[in-house]
Amino acid sequence: MVMFWQPLSVESWIGMRRGSLSDVKDSVNTIIEDVRVNGDKALFSLTEKFDHQKLSSLAISSEEIDAAYDHVSPELVQALIEAEARITQFHELQKSKTLWLEEMEPGITLGVKTTPLDRIGAYIPGGRAAYPSTVLMTTVAARVAGVPEIVVCTPPKVNPLTLVALDIAGVDEAYQIGGAQAVAAMALGTETIRPVQKIVGPGNVFVTQAKMMLREYADIDFPAGPSEIGIIADASAEPRYIAADVLAQAEHDPNAACVLVTDSKKLAAEVGDEIAQQIANAPRREIMEKALAHSGYVIAESMEDATDLMNRIAPEHLSIQTVDALSTLSGIRHAGSIFIGPYTPVACGDYASGTNHVLPTAGYAKSYSALDVNHFMKRSQVQMVTREGLESIGDVIEALATAEGLAAHANSVRLRRE
Amino acid sequence: MVMFWQPLSVESWIGMRRGSLSDVKDSVNTIIEDVRVNGDKALFSLTEKFDHQKLSSLAISSEEIDAAYDHVSPELVQALIEAEARITQFHELQKSKTLWLEEMEPGITLGVKTTPLDRIGAYIPGGRAAYPSTVLMTTVAARVAGVPEIVVCTPPKVNPLTLVALDIAGVDEAYQIGGAQAVAAMALGTETIRPVQKIVGPGNVFVTQAKMMLREYADIDFPAGPSEIGIIADASAEPRYIAADVLAQAEHDPNAACVLVTDSKKLAAEVGDEIAQQIANAPRREIMEKALAHSGYVIAESMEDATDLMNRIAPEHLSIQTVDALSTLSGIRHAGSIFIGPYTPVACGDYASGTNHVLPTAGYAKSYSALDVNHFMKRSQVQMVTREGLESIGDVIEALATAEGLAAHANSVRLRRE
Repeated sequence: MVMFWQPLSVESWIGMRRGSLSDVKDSVNTIIEDVRVNGDKALFSLTEKFDHQKLSSLAISSEEIDAAYDHVSPELVQALIEAEARITQFHELQKSKTLWLEEMEPGITLGVKTTPLDRIGAYIPGGRAAYPSTVLMTTVAARVAGVPEIVVCTPPKVNPLTLVALDIAGVDEAYQIGGAQAVAAMALGTETIRPVQKIVGPGNVFVTQAKMMLREYADIDFPAGPSEIGIIADASAEPRYIAADVLAQAEHDPNAACVLVTDSKKLAAEVGDEIAQQIANAPRREIMEKALAHSGYVIAESMEDATDLMNRIAPEHLSIQTVDALSTLSGIRHAGSIFIGPYTPVACGDYASGTNHVLPTAGYAKSYSALDVNHFMKRSQVQMVTREGLESIGDVIEALATAEGLAAHANSVRLRRE
Repeated sequence: MVMFWQPLSVESWIGMRRGSLSDVKDSVNTIIEDVRVNGDKALFSLTEKFDHQKLSSLAISSEEIDAAYDHVSPELVQALIEAEARITQFHELQKSKTLWLEEMEPGITLGVKTTPLDRIGAYIPGGRAAYPSTVLMTTVAARVAGVPEIVVCTPPKVNPLTLVALDIAGVDEAYQIGGAQAVAAMALGTETIRPVQKIVGPGNVFVTQAKMMLREYADIDFPAGPSEIGIIADASAEPRYIAADVLAQAEHDPNAACVLVTDSKKLAAEVGDEIAQQIANAPRREIMEKALAHSGYVIAESMEDATDLMNRIAPEHLSIQTVDALSTLSGIRHAGSIFIGPYTPVACGDYASGTNHVLPTAGYAKSYSALDVNHFMKRSQVQMVTREGLESIGDVIEALATAEGLAAHANSVRLRRE
């Protein structure tokens, strides 16, 4: 049974993943200009147009959040609390010293001061699905970084579980606005929503295009598209587990994609058989089949070759299923989040291991980091030079400044050495 | 003498600094499309059009670099070598562990793997001026990060000192291409220039707009505009030194700007007098006067107030001239690079203290970091869960996945727990 599972080339994978955002450029631009000119009024009318909701207020009230607890089981509330605790714990470990200073030579002290951003925004997708886990991932990372004002936008008719997650995460302000208009509101500001310095979180192509177009106003995490998994495995791997991870990825979205890179033809075939078996009773089979239509496997000449191929793919999620997984890990250069060994399904990182699930897709892991506290902090460099220190670097500075034609630069050093 | 030195408000400063890039959008788009469609051919013809140079090759050859040494004094070569060593030393300190793993609880090990980018590009401005120091700042940071392929583009008729700096910095490939076409070539690639993953370095409004427009293809450091200095000082400060730093900033560019924030009216006036005196014989007086026309001082009610005002300004360069500079530093949240005390002119960081001079301007220090090794590395998250570890988080994952409607996610955990 290989109807869902075919050989792929790395080239075709790369060509397929980086979809163009330009199709929606004009529509997104119209929305951005509407929000820029009409502010809140545009948000109300765009929400009526796209989400078919007549809002009475943009903000989600604390009463609505309190009331949501009545619609969520105590077990689920507890699960969110446990997930939040693990995410907090892991993100705490990512923090570096807020200030370090080191005397490099007598009188020349250099260092770095790290500070959180003042105000950030997280976009949480909505629509038919609920993503309380994404509320935790985006906002807990910002809270641990020390950002004082955390704003969330999510489309209206917010699921009670998402509302409870907003509360557990300790979000400061939440608005029931979705799509490109939410991104425009957070970047440009309206009467009700003050602008943020950075916007993070996943979204559809409209949301991503709006994030890209508004980067002059608010920085972003990274461009992110449909979810994907790369699995690097040898003959020692368990096909049943790999198939389960493939289907978990495939159920996200018809545009999700999965690729197995292995030196074992036998394994590739067995995974195909397992997929065919497991998909039979899957509730989201239709979505899975669409995603599997552009998924498949690559047969590598060796596991070294497999590692090289996987670095070219730079998958959002990378699962390592090899005899010596840590040695495979050492060769990996590009991946958003890495899952090692048979008992670490990607679902662990999606929900509760503590790592973040907001990750660069489509090869962007070659240049972007998985979301973490560093996305919500920035580094100022610091220097403190004494009269003695200035003496040791003064000549070099004066020579280079003069050579660059900047006499006043040289003078600013010279008059201090008089 | 206050003709060059007037009271300012923080609001007017903020309004003035964030110039719009949109004026050049259409021209830059035309250039980008030309490079996308015509590749090398476009680079040759655009260089002829904008730089009035008929190039015989895009690449700068190692022969040209070797020959440049004949036109640079041994003292200047030595100054570049010393600056390079200090920049390398400071940037080495910024590196964090390439892999850390920590067992958070039995069977759940999490961590972060940090890897360099594969290939980056630095833009070095040219034209009338030479910026060998910028070659060092951009490329040494990348080299220390471990980037294997470092590319530089700079406008043709490259100054010999810049050529020598390319050699000292150990740049892998250099091209004599400037402007938006250089950015387009590095982001999109041409027959000769393979695309890079990230583009850093300062440039005029065309270069900056091209960097912003091509972020889908190559990440960038940050948007950067004309240089600026903020000085926070109390009555203890030396007006002569402050005036010298103001003029050093002002000589860069007619659009450069300087602001002193102080609780001392006397100091503000004395700085004005000193500026008037020092500017008299300055070689770049005309440029300085234009920059000073939109520069000046803000009188704060207290030094605490001054710190708040300075955080709103978020200057590219911040000079701290107060009795207790480290206590002032502790209140600073937003600045690109910070210069502490009377003997640390900004020129130290421009050339030779070891810190970077590629910095966010126009308030972008509120969300962006000074250029450092972290700009050339990215972080993958790592997790390794055992059968036992999966048991402790399995229920939470299955509950949340089921609540989000993702049955295959829950199944990927369930079948491993059977």
